[in-house]
Amino acid sequence: MSIDPKRTIAELKELRSLTGDANGAQRVAWTDTWLKAREWFGGKLRELPVEHHYDAAGNNWVTLNGASEKSLLIGGHLDSVPNGGWLDGSLNVLAGLEILRRIAKQYDGKPPVTVKLVDWADEEGARFGRSLLGSSAFAGTASVEADRVRTDRDGIKMEDALRRCGVEMERFGEATKGQKNAVAYIELHIEQGPVLERMDLPLATVLGTKGVERHAITFHGQEAHSGSTPMSARRDALAAAAKLALEIRRIAGKHSDSVCTMGSVKTFPGIVTAVVGRCEVTLDQRDLDPAVLAQMYREARDASESFAQEEKCSVEWSRIWSIEPIAFHPRLLELCDAAITEVTGTPKAHRMPSGPLHDAAEVSRAGIPTAMMFVQSLGGISHNKVEDTKEEHLQLCVTAFDRLASKAMDFVASV
Amino acid sequence: MSIDPKRTIAELKELRSLTGDANGAQRVAWTDTWLKAREWFGGKLRELPVEHHYDAAGNNWVTLNGASEKSLLIGGHLDSVPNGGWLDGSLNVLAGLEILRRIAKQYDGKPPVTVKLVDWADEEGARFGRSLLGSSAFAGTASVEADRVRTDRDGIKMEDALRRCGVEMERFGEATKGQKNAVAYIELHIEQGPVLERMDLPLATVLGTKGVERHAITFHGQEAHSGSTPMSARRDALAAAAKLALEIRRIAGKHSDSVCTMGSVKTFPGIVTAVVGRCEVTLDQRDLDPAVLAQMYREARDASESFAQEEKCSVEWSRIWSIEPIAFHPRLLELCDAAITEVTGTPKAHRMPSGPLHDAAEVSRAGIPTAMMFVQSLGGISHNKVEDTKEEHLQLCVTAFDRLASKAMDFVASV
Repeated sequence: MSIDPKRTIAELKELRSLTGDANGAQRVAWTDTWLKAREWFGGKLRELPVEHHYDAAGNNWVTLNGASEKSLLIGGHLDSVPNGGWLDGSLNVLAGLEILRRIAKQYDGKPPVTVKLVDWADEEGARFGRSLLGSSAFAGTASVEADRVRTDRDGIKMEDALRRCGVEMERFGEATKGQKNAVAYIELHIEQGPVLERMDLPLATVLGTKGVERHAITFHGQEAHSGSTPMSARRDALAAAAKLALEIRRIAGKHSDSVCTMGSVKTFPGIVTAVVGRCEVTLDQRDLDPAVLAQMYREARDASESFAQEEKCSVEWSRIWSIEPIAFHPRLLELCDAAITEVTGTPKAHRMPSGPLHDAAEVSRAGIPTAMMFVQSLGGISHNKVEDTKEEHLQLCVTAFDRLASKAMDFVASV
Repeated sequence: MSIDPKRTIAELKELRSLTGDANGAQRVAWTDTWLKAREWFGGKLRELPVEHHYDAAGNNWVTLNGASEKSLLIGGHLDSVPNGGWLDGSLNVLAGLEILRRIAKQYDGKPPVTVKLVDWADEEGARFGRSLLGSSAFAGTASVEADRVRTDRDGIKMEDALRRCGVEMERFGEATKGQKNAVAYIELHIEQGPVLERMDLPLATVLGTKGVERHAITFHGQEAHSGSTPMSARRDALAAAAKLALEIRRIAGKHSDSVCTMGSVKTFPGIVTAVVGRCEVTLDQRDLDPAVLAQMYREARDASESFAQEEKCSVEWSRIWSIEPIAFHPRLLELCDAAITEVTGTPKAHRMPSGPLHDAAEVSRAGIPTAMMFVQSLGGISHNKVEDTKEEHLQLCVTAFDRLASKAMDFVASV
């Protein structure tokens, strides 16, 4: 009754060949390549005693009915960013498939509780800039009216692209039906960061997903001729922005797990012969502790105002997006720890927050007990064709995640 | 035998109506609007006893032949940037026209020395990114092979645009013939900066044009996920660039007239969720003293390397363009001082370097004694429709520049 992690790796490579190219994975949601990946995945289900349906948001549900309707959900996503990696999202789905096979075999097609594998639609938001689309519909947190009119680079509307894939956005609300009988949710994911590699650990229990404050900040100074304007007469918007770019590192540095990132700087007029009159920057701040996140936001805001004043500029803030920190379920965290220690033979599992968001955050928002397991990423690189994880770690994570699934089924049965 | 500065102002307004719109002046060189400005200017010459021809680079020469072939040149340019101001370049030409009228009348069409008014072609370089085009052809410093293949935003080649205006770039070399018998060159210009307004002075003698070091600087770090990459694991190219943006102000601040400007910052991938992997910036440094300019360049370069190292990044420099400082002619500077003090009734004329380049710099490079006079700019703003100068100052500058022309004619006669 054991699983075959090598098969998972072989299937990941099969999917890579089918839906990737020299630049990496191309399974962008709502494209033909993504549909091809889903069709390929459907083919893998034929040998299994499962039911299979798409919900109103395009999430792909594979159900292994159990003696009880109480369900364990296992999630992942087949979609990728353009030129993406071979593991982000797909590892979760294909490890889940291998676990379904093991459970179906072990219980002769009828486990004590129902187990559902879900391939969430459009986790990445790569085409329309709206991530966690399918899982937010499931959680009832979708923002359909704001999202339907989003367009891709070619000007194609989101609702039209989805309709082409058989999904009507006005029916998104119906996807919350999937919550019925869901008692626990588990998800495996590559870390996408360098922490585990630096600690020389293969696996970790994920405490939750960090909250995010994401803002557009504009400094307004005075465009001026670079040759004729003395330094003392300048109102240089870039200078104020540069001070903030450095200050956010001090702000983040006060807390061990906090991150603050200025990812984009745009200068106007942005020519070599003019002092910058307007500077637009973005700020992304994350922490697992809501109080820390709120404090970091206030500190950055106050600092930006001081710097604007020092440079005789003004500053405006506009929230791009934010989400509260999501803490995963205490009992499921313990089960994840146990799965890791059993498989690795270490006395204690490492626990860490996730900086990136995952579908697990939306499921947790729906009030369903949730846990995630991380496996080490090589070089901390993801969303890139060089994204990779050692094969021994891939095998280990499938085995550990399978243990977690067993424990979580017991949890579901006990609730 | 006096001039009429009010007529100059009226003609400037006439030109503005003819070749500007709600967004400002539109006399971009090699466009129909520029040709229209030149045709209008040609009409103004009919009443004068002058010869008129275009040289091989499209510079427009108006010659009032004198008893001697030794010549005083008075220069300006009718071309503007897009959405430009009403004074930049045109004031020079139309003040020169008024002075030609006065000299022709005073000497009954035959002054002791020859006086030539030149409307340089394409001072701004607004369409093809190559400024001082006509005056560099005159000076023999033109870079025809590099320039002929430049294209505008619509993909039109520079040499084709010039041919349409009757100018063959391969004949540019012939424009140096204009140097023959040229003994002195004078140019009037708005300051385009805030210095005179801050000192409450209408006029200044220009010491020369500052040398310029103009570089593209690229910091290479490592693109990384803003959520999953701890602050300590980052190689943030923006952080290194931000340090340099602030350090150049310290470098410039060591010398009273130096300026250093970071005018453009570009971040890659430049998205809110990624640490900046590559940051491209521009640096423009100017000073009148070659040793100071060289030192500022070295200091900025050293600082960029330290900052790159601190941030575990690398840095590359690439020279965009440079020009040496040009000091104007000592005797002509004294004549300019005298013209200013006579007209303003002050004991001493203010002397200042020019940060912006002017055609005068190219003429001086040709070995012709050169001087420039500045008139105050309101708010230090130029290259913009709000560019302006008080009418009393415009009148004053035409009068003072006329005095300088008289003195310069004596200088030409005496050499």
